[in-house]
Amino acid sequence: MALIVQKYGGSSVGDAESIKRVAKRVAEAKRAGNDVVVVVSAMGDTTDELIDLAQQVTPMPPQREMDILLTAGERISMSLLAMAINNLGVKAKSFTGQQAGVITDAVYGRARIVDVVPSRVRETLDKGTVAIVAGFQGVNRDENDVTTLGRGGSDTTAVALAAGLGADVCEIYTDVDGVFTADPRIVPKARKVERITYEEMLEMAACGAKVLMLRCVEFGRRCSVPIHVRSSFTGQVGTLVTNEPPAKEASTVEAPIITGVAHDRSEAKITIVGVPDVPGTAARIFEVVALSGANIDMIVQNVSAAATGLTDISFTLPEGDGPAALAALRASQEDIGFDSLQFDDQVGKLSLIGAGMKSSPGVSAQLFAALRDAGINIEMISTSEIRISVVTREDSLNDAVRAVHSAFNLDVEADAIIHAGTGR
Amino acid sequence: MALIVQKYGGSSVGDAESIKRVAKRVAEAKRAGNDVVVVVSAMGDTTDELIDLAQQVTPMPPQREMDILLTAGERISMSLLAMAINNLGVKAKSFTGQQAGVITDAVYGRARIVDVVPSRVRETLDKGTVAIVAGFQGVNRDENDVTTLGRGGSDTTAVALAAGLGADVCEIYTDVDGVFTADPRIVPKARKVERITYEEMLEMAACGAKVLMLRCVEFGRRCSVPIHVRSSFTGQVGTLVTNEPPAKEASTVEAPIITGVAHDRSEAKITIVGVPDVPGTAARIFEVVALSGANIDMIVQNVSAAATGLTDISFTLPEGDGPAALAALRASQEDIGFDSLQFDDQVGKLSLIGAGMKSSPGVSAQLFAALRDAGINIEMISTSEIRISVVTREDSLNDAVRAVHSAFNLDVEADAIIHAGTGR
Repeated sequence: MALIVQKYGGSSVGDAESIKRVAKRVAEAKRAGNDVVVVVSAMGDTTDELIDLAQQVTPMPPQREMDILLTAGERISMSLLAMAINNLGVKAKSFTGQQAGVITDAVYGRARIVDVVPSRVRETLDKGTVAIVAGFQGVNRDENDVTTLGRGGSDTTAVALAAGLGADVCEIYTDVDGVFTADPRIVPKARKVERITYEEMLEMAACGAKVLMLRCVEFGRRCSVPIHVRSSFTGQVGTLVTNEPPAKEASTVEAPIITGVAHDRSEAKITIVGVPDVPGTAARIFEVVALSGANIDMIVQNVSAAATGLTDISFTLPEGDGPAALAALRASQEDIGFDSLQFDDQVGKLSLIGAGMKSSPGVSAQLFAALRDAGINIEMISTSEIRISVVTREDSLNDAVRAVHSAFNLDVEADAIIHAGTGR
Repeated sequence: MALIVQKYGGSSVGDAESIKRVAKRVAEAKRAGNDVVVVVSAMGDTTDELIDLAQQVTPMPPQREMDILLTAGERISMSLLAMAINNLGVKAKSFTGQQAGVITDAVYGRARIVDVVPSRVRETLDKGTVAIVAGFQGVNRDENDVTTLGRGGSDTTAVALAAGLGADVCEIYTDVDGVFTADPRIVPKARKVERITYEEMLEMAACGAKVLMLRCVEFGRRCSVPIHVRSSFTGQVGTLVTNEPPAKEASTVEAPIITGVAHDRSEAKITIVGVPDVPGTAARIFEVVALSGANIDMIVQNVSAAATGLTDISFTLPEGDGPAALAALRASQEDIGFDSLQFDDQVGKLSLIGAGMKSSPGVSAQLFAALRDAGINIEMISTSEIRISVVTREDSLNDAVRAVHSAFNLDVEADAIIHAGTGR
C-alpha cells in the first residue's frame, strides 16, 4: 500500500464524461489499496472564460479580486470529481487550497508556496477517503485571502502536497505518454524516456519541453519527490523523474549519453549595433534590460573591429519581453552610446540535453557537424554542464531537431512505437 | 452618513454590462457619503448550469460537494463586481460568506444562519472601502466547510449582515419596483405599497407574493432591520418593510385598511372521503401526513352525515408534497378506516391581507360578496388576524384577484401608474 498523489490537468477534466473517466482511474488506484490524493485543475477553458469576463468588466482588474475569480474554476472541477468518485462507491471529499493547508506568500496571481500543512487531507486519508484538492491555489496567511500560483500552479500544488504528506510518488497525468527524446509532432521517431534526473528534466523544461513546468520540477528536486509523468488516456507507464540516473541502461554498451532534444520558438533576438568596446558597457546594457523586467537567456558579443573600437552585442529573451526591453534600451541610447537596435523574432532555439555529456568529450563537435550536414546555420551558442543550446532561423528549427535527434542515435524503429499526441 | 446593505439578485448581475450598471449604483451610494455593503447572488443562470453539470456526473451528488460546487457562482459575481467598482475609482473588496463571518448549522443545501461575526466587513468599511459579500453561503463552524442557505438565501444573507452590522437599512434590489397590492401582471391597476409591516409582509410572502422570501422577512422582523424593496433598473423608491404601520395615511379618512391581494397557484387539495367521525381520527390523519414530510396549509372538515357517521376531510398542501402524502395515507387506509382519496391540483388560493382588518368588521362579508358578484365559487376558507384566504378553481383565480382588488378600492387610475415588470 502506497500514498499516491495524482494530478489531472484541465484537458483531463474538460467535461462531465472526462471527469467520470478520471473518477474511474482514481477509484481503481484506491481499490488497489492505496491512499490517494487527487489534485485537479479547472475544467478545460474555464480559466480563459473567467479572464475574458474580467476583461469585459475592467481593463485593470485588481489582482486580489482576479485570484478570487479564477479560483472559482477549481471549485467546480474538484466538487464534480468528488461527486463522480462517490458515485462509483468510493468515498471522496474535496478541499480548497486553503483547506488543504497550501500556504503562500501574498503575491496575488503568481504566489509561491511557503508551507504545506495538510492536516485535513491526512485525516481524510486516515478515514479511508480519497482527498480531492484544488490545484493552482493557496491561502495568503497574513490576509486569509485566496491566492493563485500562476502558470504550472497545479503541478506545483501536487508536488508540494506529495512532499508535505511524504507520498511515495506524485503522478502528473497529462495528454501525452510522458517525456520524449524530442517533440513527437516534429520527430516521429522520438522515443519515450523511461527515467530522467531532476537536473536533466529542469534543462528540458527550461529549453522548451512543455510536459512539466520548471517550478514543479524544482520543487520535486528540492524535496526529493519522485514525479511520474503519464497519460490520462492510456494508463501506460510514463516517465519517472527522480534523483537516480537510469543505472541499468547506463551500464550497457549502447547507453545513450543524451537524454533528448528540446526546442523553443518563443524567444526573440535583440542585437545592439555599434557598441563602444570599453569596460562597463555590457554591464550598463544588461542593467537597463533587467530593469525593464525582461528575462535574458543567451548573450553573444562579437569581436570588436580594431578600426572603429565598436562591437555588436546580441541576446535572446522571451518574445513578449521584447517591446519593454527595446523601449528601455532606446531611452538609454545616448547614455550607452550605441548606433542602432535590431529586433528579430524569427529565431528558434535547439537544446541537446544529457547528464552523460559531462564525461563525454566531443558532443558539441558532433552536434555542430550534424547541423552543418543538414545545411543549418548556427547564430548563437551557449552551454552548461548537461546542455548545449544553439540559435537558428526559426524556419529551419524542425529540420535541425530531426537532424540532431538522428545524429545522436535517439531514433527508434518507425514501427516500434505508438505515439502520444493523439489526445492533444 | 448611513450604513447601507444592498442586495442584488442574479438577474441584476446577469452579464458584464449589468455588473457595470450595479457598480455605478453602488459607487453613487458610496460617493453620497454612506458606508456600503453589497450582497450579491450568482450571475443569471450560473446556479442552474452548475446543477446541470452535477446531474451529468451523478444522479445523487453528496450535498457537501454540491454546496462547494454551487458557491463557485457567487465567487465569480462578487469578484467581478468588486473589479467593476474599483474601475470607477471607488475602493471595493469581495468576501466569501465565510470571510464575512456568516456562520451556519451543518445542514448542507439549506443551512440556517446561527451567527454573524462580520469583523472583516467592519474593518473594510472603516477603511472607506465597499465590502462585497457572497450571498447564499456561509460556513459550518464545526467542519469549517462551506454551506448554502437554500432558496432566498441571498436575501437572508443581506438582512442577517444588516442586523449584525446594525445597518440603517437593508435594500433588496429586484426586477420589480416594490411590493404591489396585487401582481401587476394579473391586475394592471395594482398599486405600489409605500410601507408595510413585517407581519403583513409575512402573510403576503406566505400567500404567494414572490418579491421577498418568508425567511428573510422573518429575520428582518426578529432583528428589526428595515427592508427597502426596490428596482435595480429604475432607482425609484420602492416599498419599506418595518415595524411601523403607515401612520399618516391611516389617519386619513380614505385610509385603506387592506394592504393587498396575494395569490398562489402552487398548492393542491387532498380530500379524504368517508372518514369515521369519531374522536382522534383527524389527529391520526395529520400525524400520518406530517410524517410524510408534507406542509399542510388549510384544513376543512365537513359536517358529518347523521345517517352514516362518516365525514370528508380536505386539506391543501404544496403540489410537490402531494405524492408522498397520498402514499402515506394509502398505507394507513385500513388503520384510519376511510373510503377513498381525491387529489386535485387545479386549485388556486386568494388571500386578502391587511393589519387594518383586525379592527374592521365586515371584511370577510365584503370579500365573499365580491366573489359571489364575480360568479366565483369558494371551496375552502381560512382566516388569521390580518388575513382571509379562500380556495377557488385555479382557472378562475385571476378573475377573483381582480374582483377583490376592485371591491376593496385598491385600484389606481389606469393612467397614473408606470408598472414594474418590464424587467422581468
